[in-house]
Amino acid sequence: MKLGEGVEAAIHCAATLASVEGNSTIPGAALAESFGLSPSYLLKHLNMLTSSGVLESVPGPTGGYRLARPAERITLLDIVLAVEGREPAFRCGEIRRNGPVKLDASAYVKPCGINAAMLKAERAYRAALAETKLSDIVANFAEEGDPRSIAASCAFVERHQRPQKSGSIKQI
Amino acid sequence: MKLGEGVEAAIHCAATLASVEGNSTIPGAALAESFGLSPSYLLKHLNMLTSSGVLESVPGPTGGYRLARPAERITLLDIVLAVEGREPAFRCGEIRRNGPVKLDASAYVKPCGINAAMLKAERAYRAALAETKLSDIVANFAEEGDPRSIAASCAFVERHQRPQKSGSIKQI
Repeated sequence: MKLGEGVEAAIHCAATLASVEGNSTIPGAALAESFGLSPSYLLKHLNMLTSSGVLESVPGPTGGYRLARPAERITLLDIVLAVEGREPAFRCGEIRRNGPVKLDASAYVKPCGINAAMLKAERAYRAALAETKLSDIVANFAEEGDPRSIAASCAFVERHQRPQKSGSIKQI
Repeated sequence: MKLGEGVEAAIHCAATLASVEGNSTIPGAALAESFGLSPSYLLKHLNMLTSSGVLESVPGPTGGYRLARPAERITLLDIVLAVEGREPAFRCGEIRRNGPVKLDASAYVKPCGINAAMLKAERAYRAALAETKLSDIVANFAEEGDPRSIAASCAFVERHQRPQKSGSIKQI
């Protein structure tokens, strides 16, 4: 089982964007630089987060990204599904039907018990991800993070955030 | 998040092997045929299950595979970890350290809160997988499966199981 590396980048970026003032945005290139990532690599994930309604994108040379709603209403599950897709990790290939003994399709009306058991475990995983809000991540960093890291993060946001004229969904 | 296709094959094979009599084995090629899989593809997964102590392999032309312990003591987690490896799905790349502001390593002594939150969710997933025993899967199939599927599965085991002289851990 493996999550793509983009998940780590996506959560870090969303947590950083939780600290901007008002409806300000941060350019994707600045976010990439702050985590030592290639801008084109990160852009792919920022666009996925935008398509999924986790982030908003303001186009143009003075634009950038911001949260589409308050960090209290974004969960780790929202971010993981945005980047990894909504498909379950276990994808039943119905191999039970593939053997040399061909049975009528009516023999397979009930879902395979193996698939059901794997999906039940995945629901537990998703429920745990849904319990953690982006605001929890930010609050934990503020409480537990090293003061030097916190100062560097604040300085980064201060330096790169760009106030925008257009309102943000965050304020609705 | 994605699990490899081998997980489905591995669980189906283990469930099939739970039905052999005594210390009998079933050849890997027969298991592959029964699920319409390539023998070389399946062999890789059967060997992983053997290395992890879920299955036992009896070598030679009259050999094959059997469970290494009773189905009551094999969980879905045992099988998933055997096939997918024991690494967590979320692999923290410590990208928090990669930005242009270089801090001393002492600033990163505490684990990243994002990693901690992701691993907490993964523990919930693994706990759910550990709750389901292979014997539960087999019992569920016996109770809920279509009678034609059950009959085909029993006939397959009957036809392909090979009694072995050497004892199985199952009987210890």
